[in-house]
Amino acid sequence: MSFWESIRLRWSVANTMVCVGLDPDLERIRRILLAAGDPAADASAEDALYAFNRRIIDATADLAAVFKPQIAHYAACGEEGLRALKRTITYIHTRRPEVPVILDAKRGDIGSTAERYAQEVFEHFEADAVTVNPYLGGDSLEPFLAWEDRGVFVLCRTSNPSARELQDLPVCTDGRPLYQEVARLAAEQWNSRGNLGLVMGATYPDDLRAVRAIAGDMPFLVPGVGAQGGDVNAAVANGKDSAGTGLLVNSSRGILYASMGADFEAAARNAAQALRDAINAAR
Amino acid sequence: MSFWESIRLRWSVANTMVCVGLDPDLERIRRILLAAGDPAADASAEDALYAFNRRIIDATADLAAVFKPQIAHYAACGEEGLRALKRTITYIHTRRPEVPVILDAKRGDIGSTAERYAQEVFEHFEADAVTVNPYLGGDSLEPFLAWEDRGVFVLCRTSNPSARELQDLPVCTDGRPLYQEVARLAAEQWNSRGNLGLVMGATYPDDLRAVRAIAGDMPFLVPGVGAQGGDVNAAVANGKDSAGTGLLVNSSRGILYASMGADFEAAARNAAQALRDAINAAR
Repeated sequence: MSFWESIRLRWSVANTMVCVGLDPDLERIRRILLAAGDPAADASAEDALYAFNRRIIDATADLAAVFKPQIAHYAACGEEGLRALKRTITYIHTRRPEVPVILDAKRGDIGSTAERYAQEVFEHFEADAVTVNPYLGGDSLEPFLAWEDRGVFVLCRTSNPSARELQDLPVCTDGRPLYQEVARLAAEQWNSRGNLGLVMGATYPDDLRAVRAIAGDMPFLVPGVGAQGGDVNAAVANGKDSAGTGLLVNSSRGILYASMGADFEAAARNAAQALRDAINAAR
Repeated sequence: MSFWESIRLRWSVANTMVCVGLDPDLERIRRILLAAGDPAADASAEDALYAFNRRIIDATADLAAVFKPQIAHYAACGEEGLRALKRTITYIHTRRPEVPVILDAKRGDIGSTAERYAQEVFEHFEADAVTVNPYLGGDSLEPFLAWEDRGVFVLCRTSNPSARELQDLPVCTDGRPLYQEVARLAAEQWNSRGNLGLVMGATYPDDLRAVRAIAGDMPFLVPGVGAQGGDVNAAVANGKDSAGTGLLVNSSRGILYASMGADFEAAARNAAQALRDAINAAR
């Protein structure tokens, strides 16, 4: 089954548009595992990261449309961290094959190098989807899109404060801002295989409406609710597609660190459920 | 010594602006090592990559201003590849401490995540400099720039054919193309610590002149000569700074695969020397 077929089943059958972001901070998760009496608290970085992720996955998988590990959080721990990432993805594929995995890597390079990044993401880590950067244009996306059963999300409007510096620059041809031109290129030129989506930060809710008008029913990955302050209601109301779906609304820290105590799994589950319900209420 | 102090010494004392790109293709290097009778031809991916790199480094270091491994070429081989990358960087630091290392990774993410990428690049891999993507704006660059003794090269004009799709979009305020606005932001806003440079593809030589006029004496990393077809003379003539330096002109495939036979080290050395001389003749 392709990434997008899996996602549509999660939207329809599991009734969830929640993306659970697996961005573990080693110091914080050691404290949580210690509070929970888990011996992995004192294990290697690899084992601690993997043990924490497994418990979060078990606690939230039925509420998750998708899991999204962010690769920097693993790479910062060197090869141990990257081994934990690979084991985490294998665990999800084995234990919860119905929930796909987006590897958030925001890669972007010239074509011959992008092929190697696609190997890293899709072959080595066996991710179902990836995030990529549009600055180098279509030929830098093509090696990822050629993996037709995988999903590719290109950055359009990011969730950070400085997003506006480049992304809001008005493009002379008709005065629209750069991020809207990215949306147009994505919808009209780059998406020849139908496996492209857009990253649209929840912190700029009006922009979700503008891009939805440009991109039709192209799926959006929506970071920025929770710790970054984006409003779920506005993001969903403005970003949903014509069927009332089309979104993967990410929360990382809001779920992973919902509690720093022994009840962290229940708290993570509650946070994921609250997010799912808030999204569904706003559809 | 900071990255830029080291580079200035390479320009002045070693009289070279050559950047040797270490982008090994496992299949090709196994063939080369076999032709050269090196037992590493049949070794693990890690050992083969490391053995090849070591021989290239020994053959070219006195001609190199800098070495630039591209991380995707290692990451595509999984953890073995990344271990070879780490060993390669350690080898350069130990054997040739006067030649700094740029890790070409083109990272770009929101601030809290960019901190983790900076740890990956500067702590785990111990690189002296990195390449980054400007699409997310200044707060995504700041965690890299905060490492004051390291260098950061932000993509401005990339060397690939699709570079024009976004980078040439005219920005309304004064009609200049996006890549020139990136150069202006880099020079006027982002470079508060003086450790920022620009990536300027040799395949668009006129654009090097335009950006040099905007960016003053900010250093340029110049990919795209050799396999990608960029002209050395035009790139150097248009891109040099007011002292006739300011450039790191990269060649990867043109040096690594100058010969596929037992003479690959001599051929790599000749290619690096020819590039150094061509650059110096055009200054």
